[in-house]
Amino acid sequence: MKTYLDCIPCFFEQALRAGRTATDDEVVLKRLLDELGQMLGDISLESTPPETGRLLYRMVSRVTGVADPYEELKSESTARALELYPVMKKLIEEADDSLLTAIRVAIAGNVMDAGPSATFDIGAALKDVLIREFAICDYPAFKKYLADSERVLYIGDNAGETVFDRLLIEQMNKPAVYVVRDRPVINDATYDDAIRAGLENVATIVSSGTDAPGTVIASCSPEFKRMLDESDFVIAKGQGNYESLSNYPRSIFFLLKAKCRVIADDIGVTPGDIVLEGINR
Amino acid sequence: MKTYLDCIPCFFEQALRAGRTATDDEVVLKRLLDELGQMLGDISLESTPPETGRLLYRMVSRVTGVADPYEELKSESTARALELYPVMKKLIEEADDSLLTAIRVAIAGNVMDAGPSATFDIGAALKDVLIREFAICDYPAFKKYLADSERVLYIGDNAGETVFDRLLIEQMNKPAVYVVRDRPVINDATYDDAIRAGLENVATIVSSGTDAPGTVIASCSPEFKRMLDESDFVIAKGQGNYESLSNYPRSIFFLLKAKCRVIADDIGVTPGDIVLEGINR
Repeated sequence: MKTYLDCIPCFFEQALRAGRTATDDEVVLKRLLDELGQMLGDISLESTPPETGRLLYRMVSRVTGVADPYEELKSESTARALELYPVMKKLIEEADDSLLTAIRVAIAGNVMDAGPSATFDIGAALKDVLIREFAICDYPAFKKYLADSERVLYIGDNAGETVFDRLLIEQMNKPAVYVVRDRPVINDATYDDAIRAGLENVATIVSSGTDAPGTVIASCSPEFKRMLDESDFVIAKGQGNYESLSNYPRSIFFLLKAKCRVIADDIGVTPGDIVLEGINR
Repeated sequence: MKTYLDCIPCFFEQALRAGRTATDDEVVLKRLLDELGQMLGDISLESTPPETGRLLYRMVSRVTGVADPYEELKSESTARALELYPVMKKLIEEADDSLLTAIRVAIAGNVMDAGPSATFDIGAALKDVLIREFAICDYPAFKKYLADSERVLYIGDNAGETVFDRLLIEQMNKPAVYVVRDRPVINDATYDDAIRAGLENVATIVSSGTDAPGTVIASCSPEFKRMLDESDFVIAKGQGNYESLSNYPRSIFFLLKAKCRVIADDIGVTPGDIVLEGINR
């Protein structure tokens, strides 16, 4: 997905929100916004938003001097999700269609995203997503890919959401590789976050090599790129992965909740909608 | 009111919204945002938002080549308000407290503001504001100032809102001076807009001398400043006038609907609240 003009005010909102997580010093926060202003001329509308996000969140760390402002939020999110794990596990097992329910649970987990807003309520999201109609639901194709593939490449998104991804991976019951960001960026899941979520019991955890809040291929490792190109069945969670991979020449299933108007418009849905979309390129 | 950090992403939203009113050329719109980014380092948090608004909307005109992108909206807003005039006039005359009802109508007119959002619905605003509780209501003081003063200095805000201001001026029944912006900025009322609203029948229309979307004293004419300093009873409509005059060393009654969180927080109310606040300095 390209960068839309409407992404630009949002970059400033994100910088301010991330900056405030690290400091309440107005002088530092103003400097952060000023630097982003200086950077703006170099941001092309042809780039994807996570490419800018990568530079933006690096800058937040540099200017505030706080390497990982979302560390605490990530731990709390994972702990909260682990509390919900047994209830969700039971709900999935007892559902008429356990796989589709596990997909819904994994999508609900996608609200645990500190990028587009300051707060989220996972309990409310679960209640909503478990009954909400899909705006796009390529479920038959998803089931076919799952049946025909020997393994799953599952690209994770946020810490906490990881636990709900684990439930879907358990339900799919295929060898899985779970992909995380290489270093902290916003509250995106890293290796440590995936371990905390218990993913090592159900998948091989690998880093994509990037520190972007998405899968920005140019910043990924050659190993990951090879893995992606060789995978028959790829699941990519969340907005950041959609933004960075929607034009990538592979078949990818995107699982997400559309949390902003720009992405909703790009997909062709409405903000708040849930999406299971298989894009074949 | 100072500029808050949260005003900065909003400046970019405003530039984009105003730019889109003038052009749909993405290259021009991106250049607009890039220029604002370059300007950001020179914007002090100690300045008031309309000081920046003045530079911002000038830049929109310069970069897009459209001097007055809101010209059509202003004419439409005034025409729409004039359609509502007879009904509102009757409603005020038949009310138990005609003056307070006229104040409510004037505040409802304050939604006709293209600064904080792209659209507004004056019909819905009237229904809401006529029954909504005031968050701040210095009505007894307002009545006292009105009774004790020989004339009213009434600082207008937006085109269309002008018609509702006229209803309040008619109800106050005192010699009035109606203050407009010197040149077009957003959809703020200029001399021509005030004439279209029929204000010349009930007030002397004068320009404040500024082309800021507010009453930025440093850019006002010496004549207006003298008039302001010599007036016993000053009414200032809307957010832009609040932002630029809330610390001015005069007694001023602010009549507005709080349309954004930053201003609501500064006043100590909630977004959506209506306010009749007399500030004595």
